[in-house]
Amino acid sequence: VTLYLDELKPGDRFMSATHRMEAAEIRAFATQFDPQPFHLDAAAGRGSLFGELVASGWHTAAIAMRLMVDGGLPIAGGIIGTGADIRWRAPVRAGDELHVVCEILEILPSRSNSNRGSVRIACNTLNQRGEAVTTAEMRVIVSRRPP
Amino acid sequence: VTLYLDELKPGDRFMSATHRMEAAEIRAFATQFDPQPFHLDAAAGRGSLFGELVASGWHTAAIAMRLMVDGGLPIAGGIIGTGADIRWRAPVRAGDELHVVCEILEILPSRSNSNRGSVRIACNTLNQRGEAVTTAEMRVIVSRRPP
Repeated sequence: VTLYLDELKPGDRFMSATHRMEAAEIRAFATQFDPQPFHLDAAAGRGSLFGELVASGWHTAAIAMRLMVDGGLPIAGGIIGTGADIRWRAPVRAGDELHVVCEILEILPSRSNSNRGSVRIACNTLNQRGEAVTTAEMRVIVSRRPP
Repeated sequence: VTLYLDELKPGDRFMSATHRMEAAEIRAFATQFDPQPFHLDAAAGRGSLFGELVASGWHTAAIAMRLMVDGGLPIAGGIIGTGADIRWRAPVRAGDELHVVCEILEILPSRSNSNRGSVRIACNTLNQRGEAVTTAEMRVIVSRRPP
């Protein structure tokens, strides 16, 4: 089941499946998009501010998106974001198991298009200990149910 | 040359190299992290809000990070973000050539750690027509020059 604008209200909550972060994945993402030593190599990680190998924050954000697209945020027509305000709050390490909890904050009907609106959503990514590794506020375009 | 906290000041600007977005890359990122039809398939894109195949916003953000890491934002010790507020302002299509322009907005010395501080930076990603496809404000931890 996916939901249209009219079917969402502030306080609605959704939970995604879980994704386990493997060291090989962390290195592969970093090699392509964020090749900094502390995302590529355990020894370099130990010598850094982090003290260990940690995932790129953009990798964590991309995994959160995948978890939302795969059912964690069931919006009809897909998840089309216009903005996101992300805070990286705790490191993500190899072996961490992540899931995303979304909560609808506000529904903003469009002034220019009666067929859709914008929705503010808190999307927090938690690890296996329930710690928020990222907190984010997203703004997403959502269609009204077609007549 | 990379810069420490003491060597940055509001108004300093940096420009990255350019990255051309290929259709195959757009699809590969989407397959892994954002498998929505308008990021995967030209025909599906035409039937969507976008009217064409467009890159995932998280892909654009990851490419911007790569351009910054590769010299577009020359911070000593690397780019360690604590937060980012991103707006996706225009679609990114296959063939678009992206670069990032960063401007230092504010230097915030740490209250708890005299060896480093936080820097607010505007990081905008522009296409080959000079249009901002994303605008972002990042907050990054930067070390003072070691004595």
